[in-house]
Amino acid sequence: MTVAQRVQRVRARLSGADVLLVSDLTNVRWLTGFTGSNGWVVIGPDSMTLVTDGRYGQQAAAQLAAAGVEADVLVGATGAATLEHIAATCAPFATVGFEATSVTYAQHGQYRAALTATLVPTSGVVEAERRIKDSDEIESIARACRIADAVLAEVVPSLGDGLTEAQVRNRLELRMRELGASGPSYDTIVATGPINAALPHHRPTDTLIEPGHTVIIDVGALVDGYHSDMTRTFVVGAPTALQTKLYELVLTAQRAGVAAVAAGMSVKELDGVCRGIIADAGYGDWFTHGTGHGVGLLIHEDPFVNRAGDAILQVGDVVTVEPGVYREGFGGVRVEDLVVVTSDGCRVLTASPKDSPCLPSPPTT
Amino acid sequence: MTVAQRVQRVRARLSGADVLLVSDLTNVRWLTGFTGSNGWVVIGPDSMTLVTDGRYGQQAAAQLAAAGVEADVLVGATGAATLEHIAATCAPFATVGFEATSVTYAQHGQYRAALTATLVPTSGVVEAERRIKDSDEIESIARACRIADAVLAEVVPSLGDGLTEAQVRNRLELRMRELGASGPSYDTIVATGPINAALPHHRPTDTLIEPGHTVIIDVGALVDGYHSDMTRTFVVGAPTALQTKLYELVLTAQRAGVAAVAAGMSVKELDGVCRGIIADAGYGDWFTHGTGHGVGLLIHEDPFVNRAGDAILQVGDVVTVEPGVYREGFGGVRVEDLVVVTSDGCRVLTASPKDSPCLPSPPTT
Repeated sequence: MTVAQRVQRVRARLSGADVLLVSDLTNVRWLTGFTGSNGWVVIGPDSMTLVTDGRYGQQAAAQLAAAGVEADVLVGATGAATLEHIAATCAPFATVGFEATSVTYAQHGQYRAALTATLVPTSGVVEAERRIKDSDEIESIARACRIADAVLAEVVPSLGDGLTEAQVRNRLELRMRELGASGPSYDTIVATGPINAALPHHRPTDTLIEPGHTVIIDVGALVDGYHSDMTRTFVVGAPTALQTKLYELVLTAQRAGVAAVAAGMSVKELDGVCRGIIADAGYGDWFTHGTGHGVGLLIHEDPFVNRAGDAILQVGDVVTVEPGVYREGFGGVRVEDLVVVTSDGCRVLTASPKDSPCLPSPPTT
Repeated sequence: MTVAQRVQRVRARLSGADVLLVSDLTNVRWLTGFTGSNGWVVIGPDSMTLVTDGRYGQQAAAQLAAAGVEADVLVGATGAATLEHIAATCAPFATVGFEATSVTYAQHGQYRAALTATLVPTSGVVEAERRIKDSDEIESIARACRIADAVLAEVVPSLGDGLTEAQVRNRLELRMRELGASGPSYDTIVATGPINAALPHHRPTDTLIEPGHTVIIDVGALVDGYHSDMTRTFVVGAPTALQTKLYELVLTAQRAGVAAVAAGMSVKELDGVCRGIIADAGYGDWFTHGTGHGVGLLIHEDPFVNRAGDAILQVGDVVTVEPGVYREGFGGVRVEDLVVVTSDGCRVLTASPKDSPCLPSPPTT
């Protein structure tokens, strides 16, 4: 599967419109390799056209060529000129599908005024194909996972050294870049102690990491535009009975989730595997978020793995499995791996140790 | 001017609708202090209501209290429940303005189905007030500028030491955080030499910074959600005649722009001041972008300072003045300061030296 073949997958899925006007920039990138901040793709029955503005003409041609994608590139000097290019490209067709969940009301009004075709709202056409990763995409994500594994291994020995959350975050993000990531995959989470670790999306502060704390580190790298995502939880010093109990509970739930992943399974069912174990132990109220989400060119994308979802896992889905428990006064525990769904279960892309929350013992002097 | 008073400024600007439904999250934050990733504000004639989901109920109440904002906070457990809260809040009114440039076509359909009122598209209502910064906002931006000034001063002496673009970027971003920024204001640009520095929005690579190169560094910090923005250009070693000539040309244009900034001036006119000087010298084709843009809770916001703009500068606008010239084979030069428009011109918030592109001489040994 190559980038150039993706458009054919989308064509096969399009119904109810002669052409598809793709305006979501992540979808544009996935279809063409083009990474500019301004672009539209018009997918016709036998053709593909990329429209962008004057800043990006050269870049677009170069990136399409690098991706092996054949498409006409039309460059407009102004917003009005790009809209005219879109209109001219769509002119031979009676119906034009547009992306109703990303096109704004105002943009829709502009399309309606400029295009002669009937506009047909569509939802998730490209996204439905984009969630299925090909081997190159999986390799980029796996590389990102390896970088995050490496930087986490570097900082773990220092977690008992009296650093702040922000210092650990700074070190992780710097080292990911030095190891070849184009950046962090998202704002790295370092959350320590009874207050901060109880917030699933805590932002690192100057809070000191101290003995007795649970420390949640949620870190990923960005490689070739693809994201990784992983969480590990640590305890500074000897764990309390409750810390040990909840760590083992979350780890059991997380391992059961990973073991359950299978093509054809509903996301609701996968969520239920992790949630059931935690609820059966009496901590259902402490698990305050979904079990996971898809990861790719976006850090959060289809399929979302939660109680309300109706998606079915497919071979090539890359999803997180990340149950957690949180309570102010206790702190929190989350264990997260990134997996790719295969024909016989899944392959786990993240490899950091998770057997125990205990930090390495300090070297004996 | 306090955060709590902002809603009154927006009410005074709203016409054609009884209430305004604010869904743009930057606008939500500016009106209430709430920073969650899911929220709506309904501005009625005498009331304000914040609607969010279960993740953010506590945070919303705390942030509104911290900002001194009085508003009802309604929490919905699901997307449907939040929509019902919005509908109930709007129910007493006949017309509801919505933000046509950020609401998607699909969201508009949901509002239309759920709300009894007539929906009225609006554009830029909150943004028109948000661009005028109060003293607290200006102080946050000024603090961000001081951090960027400090980190740039730290790295400049090492620019002749054989570092890569990415290494300089890493150092700048790490040190901004260590000095108290919550992060970089945007992806820091370090662009060196005849190819990379010719791209206004180059992303740092492993290219070495070498003697003879022009080096463009575009760096800003993020403080309290507010951004800074500054560019300086350097030459490694003795500048060539062309490097000196173009640096002086851009600096002259940039200084003329800063000197011209005045409330009541059109952005087109300000753009023309910088562009005219560069064009008169025969390099108009090398100046391939606008002269500047507003900066605040977003790194790029109203007013945009370019040839096509029709905005008029107002006291309290915070804008960049950043002419530049770019040509493959030569490289590029850009000089950018961030200024706040005052009643008698402007105050320059960025303070890094710009008299010369020459690096400090290495210490004599």
